[in-house]
Amino acid sequence: HTYDAGEYDVIVVGAGHAGSEAALAAARMGQKTLLLTISLEMVAFMPCNPSVGGPAKGTVVREIDALGGEMGKNIDKTYIQMRMLNTGKGPAVQALRAQADKHAYHQEMKNTIEKEPNLDLRQAIVDDLLVKDHKAEGVVTNTGATYHSKTVVMATGTSARGQIYIGELRYSSGPNNSLPSIKLSKNLEKKGFNLERFKTGTPPRINGNTINYAETEEQPGDAQPRHFSYTTPYSDYLSVSDQVSCWLTYTNPKTHSLIRDNLDRSPLFNGIIDGIGPRYCPSLEDKVVRFADKDRHQVFLEPEGRGNDEWYVDGMSNSMPEEIQQEMLHSVKGLENAQMMRPGYAIEYDIITPQQMKPSMESKLVEGLFTAGQTNGTSGYEEAAGQGLIAGINAARKVQNKDPLILKRSDAYIGVLLDDLVTKGTNEPYRLLTSRAEYRLLLRNDNADMRLTPIGHEIGLISDERYAEFEKKRQAVEDEIKRLESLRIKPSDKINQFVESHGDKPLQDGILAAQFLRRPYVDYDKLLEFIPATENKLDPRVIEQVSIRVKYAGYIKKEEAKVAKMKRMESKKIPENIDYDAIDGIATEGKQKLKEIQPQTIAQASRISGVNPSDIAILGVYIQQGKIAKTK
Amino acid sequence: HTYDAGEYDVIVVGAGHAGSEAALAAARMGQKTLLLTISLEMVAFMPCNPSVGGPAKGTVVREIDALGGEMGKNIDKTYIQMRMLNTGKGPAVQALRAQADKHAYHQEMKNTIEKEPNLDLRQAIVDDLLVKDHKAEGVVTNTGATYHSKTVVMATGTSARGQIYIGELRYSSGPNNSLPSIKLSKNLEKKGFNLERFKTGTPPRINGNTINYAETEEQPGDAQPRHFSYTTPYSDYLSVSDQVSCWLTYTNPKTHSLIRDNLDRSPLFNGIIDGIGPRYCPSLEDKVVRFADKDRHQVFLEPEGRGNDEWYVDGMSNSMPEEIQQEMLHSVKGLENAQMMRPGYAIEYDIITPQQMKPSMESKLVEGLFTAGQTNGTSGYEEAAGQGLIAGINAARKVQNKDPLILKRSDAYIGVLLDDLVTKGTNEPYRLLTSRAEYRLLLRNDNADMRLTPIGHEIGLISDERYAEFEKKRQAVEDEIKRLESLRIKPSDKINQFVESHGDKPLQDGILAAQFLRRPYVDYDKLLEFIPATENKLDPRVIEQVSIRVKYAGYIKKEEAKVAKMKRMESKKIPENIDYDAIDGIATEGKQKLKEIQPQTIAQASRISGVNPSDIAILGVYIQQGKIAKTK
Ligand SMILES: Cc1cc2nc3c(=O)[nH]c(=O)nc-3n(C[C@H](O)[C@H](O)[C@H](O)COP(=O)(O)OP(=O)(O)OC[C@H]3O[C@@H](n4cnc5c(N)ncnc54)[C@H](O)[C@@H]3O)c2cc1C
Ligand SMILES: Cc1cc2nc3c(=O)[nH]c(=O)nc-3n(C[C@H](O)[C@H](O)[C@H](O)COP(=O)(O)OP(=O)(O)OC[C@H]3O[C@@H](n4cnc5c(N)ncnc54)[C@H](O)[C@@H]3O)c2cc1C
Repeated sequence: HTYDAGEYDVIVVGAGHAGSEAALAAARMGQKTLLLTISLEMVAFMPCNPSVGGPAKGTVVREIDALGGEMGKNIDKTYIQMRMLNTGKGPAVQALRAQADKHAYHQEMKNTIEKEPNLDLRQAIVDDLLVKDHKAEGVVTNTGATYHSKTVVMATGTSARGQIYIGELRYSSGPNNSLPSIKLSKNLEKKGFNLERFKTGTPPRINGNTINYAETEEQPGDAQPRHFSYTTPYSDYLSVSDQVSCWLTYTNPKTHSLIRDNLDRSPLFNGIIDGIGPRYCPSLEDKVVRFADKDRHQVFLEPEGRGNDEWYVDGMSNSMPEEIQQEMLHSVKGLENAQMMRPGYAIEYDIITPQQMKPSMESKLVEGLFTAGQTNGTSGYEEAAGQGLIAGINAARKVQNKDPLILKRSDAYIGVLLDDLVTKGTNEPYRLLTSRAEYRLLLRNDNADMRLTPIGHEIGLISDERYAEFEKKRQAVEDEIKRLESLRIKPSDKINQFVESHGDKPLQDGILAAQFLRRPYVDYDKLLEFIPATENKLDPRVIEQVSIRVKYAGYIKKEEAKVAKMKRMESKKIPENIDYDAIDGIATEGKQKLKEIQPQTIAQASRISGVNPSDIAILGVYIQQGKIAKTK
Repeated sequence: HTYDAGEYDVIVVGAGHAGSEAALAAARMGQKTLLLTISLEMVAFMPCNPSVGGPAKGTVVREIDALGGEMGKNIDKTYIQMRMLNTGKGPAVQALRAQADKHAYHQEMKNTIEKEPNLDLRQAIVDDLLVKDHKAEGVVTNTGATYHSKTVVMATGTSARGQIYIGELRYSSGPNNSLPSIKLSKNLEKKGFNLERFKTGTPPRINGNTINYAETEEQPGDAQPRHFSYTTPYSDYLSVSDQVSCWLTYTNPKTHSLIRDNLDRSPLFNGIIDGIGPRYCPSLEDKVVRFADKDRHQVFLEPEGRGNDEWYVDGMSNSMPEEIQQEMLHSVKGLENAQMMRPGYAIEYDIITPQQMKPSMESKLVEGLFTAGQTNGTSGYEEAAGQGLIAGINAARKVQNKDPLILKRSDAYIGVLLDDLVTKGTNEPYRLLTSRAEYRLLLRNDNADMRLTPIGHEIGLISDERYAEFEKKRQAVEDEIKRLESLRIKPSDKINQFVESHGDKPLQDGILAAQFLRRPYVDYDKLLEFIPATENKLDPRVIEQVSIRVKYAGYIKKEEAKVAKMKRMESKKIPENIDYDAIDGIATEGKQKLKEIQPQTIAQASRISGVNPSDIAILGVYIQQGKIAKTK
């Protein structure tokens, strides 16, 4: 039995972090949108770490916010601890991180979706994708519902033919014992998609009442107000006493030998799991084996929410048998009597290898089909949400007959992520790291609004009102920088006393305020002691921009020059119908890779592994000579 | 692989409404207790109606509270609407009913369990029961954990070999798509337990933003403060504006013909489901078929919680194919555009037939094994919780070598429930109804504390402090009744004007205050206009008791006399080792039933269907003659 269940512009499959963003974006862009998901209890559910942000990932959340996505607002409404990481280091690696109330996070996102006018949320398992003439036409669910649509976004996470492992125990399941999605994978394979097996894992949860906190180190939240969304007012910030602390402890040689002695019982190591695991979110088994000389690893104890005494044992992800997990926990200081409430587990699942997608996240094989999130081979809520947002935007733009939004590597971490995925693929669950970005000093966590709000506004996800607010901020930053670049500070006893107290030579002539601010021991507040204040007191976020822009002006300029150069290459488009076989001189491996990836620009082509510089040179000349006309 | 996972006094399997009470009771009675459950997300989860209470059920909640159980406190902390039903009727049928925030209810109960010192809560599927020499010795879980214990409480609900049905769709699942329990059923059967198949169902959920409330009737909460727990202060009561309304609408002939036209696609009607459904919680299919002449049925729209726009469509439980469910919804006034978020479904599951249990809830087959809740063939959260509490108490008392607590039919609705189950069994999901109780006027919702607090105190679940508070209340009630029974009101113009205004004859002589209060048009507040006030203002709950006890004194006395008579029969114990085959004169069917049920008293024997009065007479004589000594 199947039945006709309605028509939509955009159908999103899976309401995880990717699917929630995709659906909200498409609906807010005016498209009639349907969001189907296996369990309504798991909308924007966090199967692993109850936290959002951290290096690179935190920047992604702000990028999502600047583009008009939801993750930043959602975590700002539901965090229980906020902390800026790496405050001692430069602005390129500073990273905001929030501890989430896991249930509240889910509930808030679900409720936002429920209230969105153009958006229907329904529980169902999608069993098949409807394709006609290589075009996506809708989906079919387990209840026989046939939904028709112009575009489809697949954001199905770790549910596809999911298998859970705990030591010798193994069973078919999605994350957190949810129903797995079985039929969709088979049907996608039948349609010619290439799937691979990946795996990931999660640590045990323990009862917070059984932790001996005295034996651990407290990690309280920050007093200084910071949020993920540029729209959240400072006044919403929780005082430190209203925040919840995390606690730090460590594994030790006893923990490690428990693991070594039982490696043959870990499905990650005894050959039972084929899937490839996340190198940058490794299991404790992984860490103990790979870093055999380290005799301890950090273990962060993190609350999963208010009114909930389950604690997440960050750093002890593993898939050992339950009894070994219990012993491992008890070997750790502060956890001697910890009561394990659920064991950790590994999960193996299908991904749709991302090289099959264009940088717009549209499938090369099936027009109008977009993929996003863990199903594309990534790992992490933020990576998923970033992809979801772009997939949702581009699905909506497809319906609107508009060109896709493609973020460049120099625009956003999201651009880096997508370019890496579609250009290089990934042979393990891909995680964003600051080291993956070439332009770290441009892709800062503080300036995501500067980089992306105009784009968000243009595509229709940032309201005119919010855009006007943003423009005010941008203008205030520019004005103040201009002022500092022209304002000259005259030498005086006061200033010279100050510079000398920092071991510097006294000023002889005047110095530009901006130049003075560049000195490591001068911050903006200090500077104000020597120059007139602005007419209106500047917002701390404006001051932050001014300070960073002035202090790092030299480095920023250099990176901008590199970007400009790259942009020329990015502007060299490769026609869609190019026939690589007709080009003499490109090496066989290069040709094969170019045909597989189908890069859209010379710049993208140059990043494909296996395509070497001479291939690129030949390709460039070929396109410039206009030989394309001759191709099929 | 199995491993030794520890020793407990009491192990409870399943943290539903029954298991939560059982585990808390056992732990609070000082026993080292383990609570194992398939999903920690589903502790005290409400798979169906997000509400607690109602006729008979509401009284059970107060009985649980008076005995020291948790349900009353838990709903008082998490309700979003409170309403006294049947306020126009007598005190025997008045019933408190609360709309719950479904997630908060779960979270609060889970957190209470997490904080309970003697209690470990762990996620696991129990696959087998350990039995040696007909004694329960522990359980084995899916991860190979072997837990040893002195007693085991099975409170496994609707998960046992669960099968979900939505039209033609059918799959193996516990409630709400949780993992089902498969192996335990088989293993119990192997040990000689008799299992049967029952079924139940739930309606679709809809998005509250798509209801046209203007077409429905509002059902707001009560302004007068009332709670379930005797310990919740009035000051905690939510104002009407802080409560959430429900809304009433109706099915109509169009809805009904949709059902009739598609009955062949309802697994409840086309023969696909064998299991027996709940007559008193019928599906809409059932109602339409059974009451063919009714052209409408009530449909209550009930919110599932705050910050959650899913609404429960009370009255439309069904297992029709999804598309028919959608059409059925749209046929109802106010739901023309309702967006269905999840379809309703039916679920079929195993029960352990309750005749296999003693009135203490202990198994006759396996000593130290107790069963409670839906697995005993009942339906409803309150019925489950009531059984769970008793099972937990008796498991703990078994460990303490104490006699089991057995509530009589005249003590509590819980007593009626247990006696019905073990004495009569049930051939459909058993629901408590006021009509099942012989002594309705004694088993009121207002006096559960009077009936049961002393018992709760004696078994150790009511603290001395609470007991002292209770004693104060009891004394205040007695004192005031005594006062009213002796205080004479003299005729006066004022009082005679009042009685005449109610069409009554003026007083000639004086009248006792109590007698005056018995008049239908007199309530306690009115009475106070004619007699001196008490020294201290009485608590409204004291006044309520005084009023009911005085007004209904005659009826209450009559029921108490019946109870006294029944108690004589209850006191006639039947020895455990009686050999019914050795008794001449008992009819064959009677003998067979007596052997199956093994009643513990002559009173219980008299309630077994198939055992007739002459059988009882013979049995009574046989026991009185002391012939028992001769039995095996
Ligand atoms: C056990 C575990 C441990 C993890 N550990 C880490 C970690 O340590 N670090 C880290 O960064 N990330 C970790 N992750 C990954 C992180 O949870 C994901 O990257 C993130 O949730 C991905 O978001 P998503 O939206 O792509 O997928 P998900 O959040 O998985 O959401 C996908 C949604 O799609 C639904 N769905 C799937 N198939 C269908 C279908 N056929 N029809 C309808 N709906 C469907 C699912 O029910 C689900 O709701 C872990 C994940 C798991 C499961
Ligand atoms: C779809 C549906 C509709 C319903 N409709 C109604 C209704 O309209 N009216 C009404 O009064 N009642 C209804 N009920 C019944 C009501 O939900 C139950 O009566 C009540 O929840 C029973 O409580 P319980 O504790 O016995 O079982 P549950 O609440 O089901 O809890 C049992 C627990 O045991 C766990 N468990 C099961 N097997 C194992 C195992 N092997 N190992 C470990 N843990 C295990 C389960 O995971 C679950 O958490 C409905 C139930 C369902 C599922």
